[in-house]
Parts: sequence; C-alpha cells; structure tokens
Amino acid sequence: MKTKIRNLFLKLFVTALPFCLLFFLFVNNSATAGTASRNSYAGNKAKYVFLFIGDGMGLPQVSAAEIYSGAGKNSKYPDGSRVLSFTDFPSQGLTTTHDASSFITDSASAGTAIACGYKTLNGVISMDVDKKIKYESISKKAKKNGMKVGIISSVSIDHATPATFYSNQPSRKNMYEISLELADSGFDYFAGGSVDDPDGKKSKMQNKPGNVFSYAKKKGYKIINSKKDFVKLNKKSGKVWVVTEQPADAASMLYEIDRKNGVSSLADFTKKGIEVLDNENGFFMMVEGGKIDWACHANDGMSAIRDTFAFSEAVQHAVDFAKKHPAETLIVVTGDHECGGMTIGFAGTQYDTFFNKLNSQKVSFAKFDEDFSKMKAKSNLTFDSVMPLITKYFGLKTGKGGDMDLTGYEMDLLKTAFAESLKDAKSRTNDENSAIIYGSYEPLTVTITHILNRKAGIGWTTYSHTGVPVPTYAYGTGNEIFNGFYDNTDIYGKMAAVMNIK
Amino acid sequence: MKTKIRNLFLKLFVTALPFCLLFFLFVNNSATAGTASRNSYAGNKAKYVFLFIGDGMGLPQVSAAEIYSGAGKNSKYPDGSRVLSFTDFPSQGLTTTHDASSFITDSASAGTAIACGYKTLNGVISMDVDKKIKYESISKKAKKNGMKVGIISSVSIDHATPATFYSNQPSRKNMYEISLELADSGFDYFAGGSVDDPDGKKSKMQNKPGNVFSYAKKKGYKIINSKKDFVKLNKKSGKVWVVTEQPADAASMLYEIDRKNGVSSLADFTKKGIEVLDNENGFFMMVEGGKIDWACHANDGMSAIRDTFAFSEAVQHAVDFAKKHPAETLIVVTGDHECGGMTIGFAGTQYDTFFNKLNSQKVSFAKFDEDFSKMKAKSNLTFDSVMPLITKYFGLKTGKGGDMDLTGYEMDLLKTAFAESLKDAKSRTNDENSAIIYGSYEPLTVTITHILNRKAGIGWTTYSHTGVPVPTYAYGTGNEIFNGFYDNTDIYGKMAAVMNIK
Repeated sequence: MKTKIRNLFLKLFVTALPFCLLFFLFVNNSATAGTASRNSYAGNKAKYVFLFIGDGMGLPQVSAAEIYSGAGKNSKYPDGSRVLSFTDFPSQGLTTTHDASSFITDSASAGTAIACGYKTLNGVISMDVDKKIKYESISKKAKKNGMKVGIISSVSIDHATPATFYSNQPSRKNMYEISLELADSGFDYFAGGSVDDPDGKKSKMQNKPGNVFSYAKKKGYKIINSKKDFVKLNKKSGKVWVVTEQPADAASMLYEIDRKNGVSSLADFTKKGIEVLDNENGFFMMVEGGKIDWACHANDGMSAIRDTFAFSEAVQHAVDFAKKHPAETLIVVTGDHECGGMTIGFAGTQYDTFFNKLNSQKVSFAKFDEDFSKMKAKSNLTFDSVMPLITKYFGLKTGKGGDMDLTGYEMDLLKTAFAESLKDAKSRTNDENSAIIYGSYEPLTVTITHILNRKAGIGWTTYSHTGVPVPTYAYGTGNEIFNGFYDNTDIYGKMAAVMNIK
Repeated sequence: MKTKIRNLFLKLFVTALPFCLLFFLFVNNSATAGTASRNSYAGNKAKYVFLFIGDGMGLPQVSAAEIYSGAGKNSKYPDGSRVLSFTDFPSQGLTTTHDASSFITDSASAGTAIACGYKTLNGVISMDVDKKIKYESISKKAKKNGMKVGIISSVSIDHATPATFYSNQPSRKNMYEISLELADSGFDYFAGGSVDDPDGKKSKMQNKPGNVFSYAKKKGYKIINSKKDFVKLNKKSGKVWVVTEQPADAASMLYEIDRKNGVSSLADFTKKGIEVLDNENGFFMMVEGGKIDWACHANDGMSAIRDTFAFSEAVQHAVDFAKKHPAETLIVVTGDHECGGMTIGFAGTQYDTFFNKLNSQKVSFAKFDEDFSKMKAKSNLTFDSVMPLITKYFGLKTGKGGDMDLTGYEMDLLKTAFAESLKDAKSRTNDENSAIIYGSYEPLTVTITHILNRKAGIGWTTYSHTGVPVPTYAYGTGNEIFNGFYDNTDIYGKMAAVMNIK
C-alpha cells in the first residue's frame, strides 16, 4: 500500500513537473516583459511605427519565397539582391515563440506576446493565464498618446492576431465580442477580411447590440466594402472600416494566388492606410499577412509563397514612406510562429530543388476544395473524372517520365486519398493513420499539394504550428536594437522603447 | 519540321536556363567574396580566432537542444537563460548556404565557402567549379601570417568540412590524398576522428607514399592515440595529430550518446588545442561538430541533440579563453547547412511537444544498427525477438495506452520496416516508396527513431541536407559585423576583415 501511494505521488510529481516549469517560465517572462536591458534605447523616438506580422511565416517560408524567385524566370536572386522587401533590412534577429503553456504557440498567445509583452495561454486574447487581467496593447497605448492607429489583416479582422491589438477576451472563439471591441476601440483604420459572426449568432452574450457593422456605424465608423468608395478614402475620411470586396473562406481576403486584378490587395490596404493615418502626431499600423499561415496549415507551398510576396509588397509601401521620413519611422517585420514544419528539402529530391514546378499550380488548395466538393455532391464520382481538374489546377499529369507526370507511387497516394475523400469525415479523423497523413484537410487536396511540393523539393511535417524560432527584421530609427536572439515579448519591449511608451 | 526544331530549341533553352542563372550566381559570388561593404571592419584586430562549425546544425537543431533542456529535469531554459553556450552571444546573423549548382549545399561546397570565401560545386574541396584553381583557405593564410593553426572534428579528420581548411581536391572522395595534404599542411594541431583510407587502398594515386601516419611522422607530427599521451600534450609538444582512442563508424569519434566517461570528447580536444596553440603570435582554430549532421541524416533526434550539447561544451572552452583575452579574441559559431528537414512539430502531436520522451533513448541509431545487424546474421529472426532490444535502447513498449507504448499504427510501421530490413538492400532502394520512407538507412532503425521522435514532437522530411538558412553567432572583438542576413562566403569575408587578412 505504501508503495502504491509513493508511486501515485511520484506519478503526480512527474505529471506536474512540466507545468511547474512552464509556470516559472510564464512568471519569469511576465516579470521581465519590456524591461530587459536588451530593450533599452536612447536614440530618436519613432513617430511612425509599422509592425508587419507574417502569420505562420518562419525562416522556411521566407526562404522558400526567395528560392522560388531564384528558380523562376523573373529571378532577382542570382544577381545577389534579395527579392523580398524586408530581408535586406539593416537589422535582423531570431525570436523565440513559446507561450505560457507550450513550446508551440498559437496566434492568440503569440499576438498577445507581441502586442502586450506578456506570455499567455493558447487561445487567449491579450489577457493573463487566469483570464482575469486585461493587458493594454501597444496600439491602445499609442492611441492614448495621441497617435492614430490602423489594423490590417488578410484574414478576418476579428481573427486572433489582429484581435490582440484592440481586444481582451478569454477566448479567440468569442468572435462577435471581439468585433464589438473593434467598434469600441476608437482606432482610426481597419482593413482586410470581413468578420466571422456579424450578428452574434454563435455568441452566448446577453443583450447583444445587434449587427456589428450597424453598431460600428453608431460608433462613428464609415463602413467601406466597394472599390469605388475605397479609392476615395483620404486623411479627412475620419474613422473607417474597410471590408474586402470579395470575402473568401472564413470571411478572409482571397488567397493571393486566387485574387483577380482589381480586387484590393494587402498592399492596397496598406498604402491606403498610410494615406488615411498620416498626421502630425504620428501613427501605429499593424499589418498581418494571415493567409501565409492558412496556406501552411494546409501544406500548400505555392499559395504560401504567393501570400508571402503579397505581404512583402505591403511592406514595400512602408519602406517607401520611411524613405520620406527617415529619422522618425520604424518598420518591424516578424512572424508570430512557423506553420506546417515546412522545409526546403525532401527525401525524394535529395540535394536538388525544382521550384519551377510550382508554376504549374494555378489556384489555392481552397479553390480546388470548392470545385471538388461540388463534384462530390454528385453520386458515383470516379477518380478518372477528377483527374482533369487536378491537371488543370496543379499541372500533375498521368503520362510517363515527364517532369510533371505522376509516378506509380504518387498515383497510388492520390487514388488512396481520393477513396478517403469519399468516406465520411468523422470515420477518417478517428483513424490515427489518416489523421497523421491528412490532418483535418480534404485527403485528395492535401495529397495533391504534398505531391506537387515534394516534386519541387518542399517537405512538411505537421498541419499545426511548430516551435522553431522565427526571424524578425527591422528598418529605420531604432532598428539596431532588433539584432540578436530574443523572445517575442521583447518585440513589444523594443517597439515600446523606440516609441518611448511605458 | 520547323515546329520540331523550334520546340527543340525551346526545350534546350528551358533546360539551360537554371544553369545560366546559377552560373551567374556563382560568378557574382566569386567576384564579391570577402570584398562586400557588409564585411568592412575598422576595430581591434583579432589575434585568437575560433570558428565552430556545427555540421548540419540549422535553427531547428539549436532550438531542439534548448527545448530538450527546457523539458528535461535539469532545465535551465525556464529561468530565461539560454542553455547552449553560444545562443546568447552578442551578435547573431542568418546565413544563406546555397552553392554554385544547387540551393542545397553539401559539406564540401559549404566548407569551401566558409574557409575560402568562394562558391563551388557539391563535392569539391576548396577548388573552383572547373576544379582547376586552388583556393587558399583562411587557415592557410593565418599560418602564413605566423599564427598557429588547429583543426578539430568529431568525424574523420579527412572529411569534407575539415578538409576544406587544409586541402584542395576536385573530390571529397579523395580521402587518402586529403590526409596526405593534412600531413603536408604544417598546421600545428589536428584532433578528432581517424582517417578513412590510411594506406590509400581506395586511391588511384600513383607513387603512393605509404601509410599516412608514417608519412605524417616524417613530416614532423607526433601521432597521439592514447589518453595517457594526450593529457601530456602542451604548448611545447610541437606539431601534433591526435586520433580518438575509440574510432567508431567510418573512422569518426563516437556519438556523444554512446561515449563512455574517460573517452576524450570534442570539448577535451578543444581545451587541449587551446593549450597547445596558445602563443604570442595568436592562433586560428576550427572545430567541427560533425556528428550532429550524421545523426540528422539518419533522422535520430536524440543523438543530434546530445552531439549539439557536446559541440556547445567545446564552444564553452573558447568562451572561457576569450574572457581572459577579451580585446583580442573572436569566436564565430555557425552551421554549414541544416540536415534532415528537422522541425519541432509533428502532425500527430499538433501543438504539443513531449521532449522528455527522448530520455528513453539510451544509444545512437548506429549502435542499434550494429547490434541488430548481428541479430540479422542469424537465420529465422522474428520481430518478437528484436522487440526487447527496441525497448531496452529506445523505451518503446508493446503495452497499451502508456506514454511509451506503441499504438496500433506505430506497431504496423515497425513490423513493415522489420520485413523491409530482412529484404536485400538493393531491392529496397529500387522501390520509390521504400527509398522515400527509409532513405538508404536500415528500415527498422530509422522507423524506430521516427516513431520516438514523432512521439516527442519532432518531424523530419529528408535524409539529405535542406536549403533553409542557418544562424551564425559571434562573440568577442568584431562580433558586431556578424549581425544581419548574409551569405556563407561572407563568414570568410568577416573573419578575414577582423583578422586583417587579405
């Protein structure tokens, strides 16, 4: 009996140990947020501050985009210049991303760390681990100090990353409540995707104030959702909330690869944001490239690369602005975490890469999903009747020996995945094998992007985020303190130091 | 007919395009090696220069070692201090690693870039892409300038990375020729693994001068291969060549995880090197942690982590020395490339990591291979008779529901791999499926490390290197020019600038 009790205690101790360590980690990080000596700064104060967050953009994502350019016909890589707008910034650091309970963060805890300087739990929006204390974000502090504030995202504007800058919620799933806080924020410019739950249908809130756009209008916001009205916006427009003309999956902006000319891009929203926000008291602008993450969750390399370029083009507008205000502008570009366990190298391609093969992909996995799901709705769907769509959208062919022809092994993978796709989704995810191979994605779709990516030399290990540190780049006044190896809470600390915000 | 000819030209053009681009890449990099403004330096000259190369040590490898410490009971991570000796160095950069023909380098072209400042082809040791020009390495230049030189590696000392510092060969496979160049180098201290081909049996060279150790003795080297003689070495010992007391796989030092107390470690060889080389004209020392790479090729995470710690301990001796000579010492720590496509995140473990499970691994994949191959030599080997060895060495069990118990899916993977392992190796690698799943490794062994790593939350994508940039860390005089984003040829340029070497 004594042995049993001892063993029980031992078991409890071993189980509790990681939590104790992580609690210590949390406490330590909370205590030092923004105060560490590595964040001290005595130079020019920044009046115009841009924070660009590539969601899910780790080193592999940045590198894949640059290698793709090097392999493509419009290459700038071989002449020695970087192709992305931020990789040649004068300062660059590596940033750890663990949160208060895991070495692998989600976007809520990562956003909280960057926006507020504190570690918290997965899923929590700018509150402490007990979900009691509301942290004041750098954007709220900037607003208090008289700066104008803009928040832009290519996913829905109530999504975790943008939310951490204007909202405090115990759960990222409270999307209606988050969108109400957007309307209450008093910030000057919102732009990007739409919202997930405009009428609060999913919300358990009592006394709902109704449709969030109507609510925002009452709070003084102009709601803009046409190109015609968008182009007219200027610094005299007052508080504006711009919603993409073409909301796509989960109320987000279109994947860049699916965006038609004329539909506003992340760069358009950023450029316009600068026009709207520019004023003598300065501004703080956060721009999220959120669909890099979504593409990486789905292991769709080409869509991630295209959205990384879209993100880079948005950053370029900030660089152009900074060149006009060199002593007063700070630009910080970071990722909140890596996503997908992306690497540039696959067992089958060994020491080679063939990124030119990615050019065969014409649409995102999401667009294929959409078309395929319409086909599935009809009965007796055969693999052979889907193959032409696969060839059209991804270039994969049934021939023999050609660059884009499917090998016997690849064809087996595709056909197995097709059979899985026809099964009931619940029976699939209950199978460990299937869950590891396909995640929660459409088996056929994710197998297509896996095969294309592997042919190009891109590998993936997960449908979630990973715990590898991410690069952070800085340009303009105070950039030099962004060199080195630091934590994501230090990004808050460093920005606050350069903005002289307490 | 005209169309055919046009198509042929088009095809030739498309085929040739990447080579043209890469040639341009090469030419450009050759021309600018060491001369770029980013490598300019006007501070204190470094008299004592340490270059540590973690072979295959990318950001995931560094991060895995630190997260392992954070998850283990002797954690230093939660208190905010880094656990590796170099991750808190004052300067840190990201380094691109592509070579003259591929975005994924091998150790020969990477070593040439770092040692000599020039891009070359996979497999070439400090010569140009035409294999005509011999590049003079920074170590040879240092020797010419009166500094003493030491070369240390945990793999065989004639392996690609150390070879680029003292040899010029059109192929890394010329290991006998390389070892002769070691003896001819006049460098002051060699230590690490043995050599692959001491008597030149694999060499096509005419008029071989015989056994390389006898040859080296004639050239004035003391050959040391016992602990007793090793400990006696000091600055009056003259030119010495230290060979590990226990050569392991391919003449390398033992994997750290397999090393018994008393057998000299990489740190021991580094500490002794400092004693031997210390002199008033200064020294240049290159230390390679080569078995990080070998473990990652085999997708053995725990062995890679343990060898990363061994590497870190070697760096610590340099840090201790630098503290005594702060104004005159430069320490650079880099990786020559990532290996294995390692990531901290796996589809099955999603947002969690369980690195404490790695503690169940007691030996390297190589030690298991050795034991398993003895078992295979007997006929009628059954899976059940191998299982106890798997449990003993890796902690994987046949129970149900426990942390280390194999799931049904994992057991299927193991049994399939066991069956593959009993097949003829040639028939295996001819099967595309098998080549992708097992690479050229023992199927059972690599499946064991895959399963254990995935349980811990570590994923792999390849048995080769990858093209993602690696971190570079610097400490001491001139460290500040190692911040930023630069190429591996710039590591040569930056070291040369701080050493005032042309």
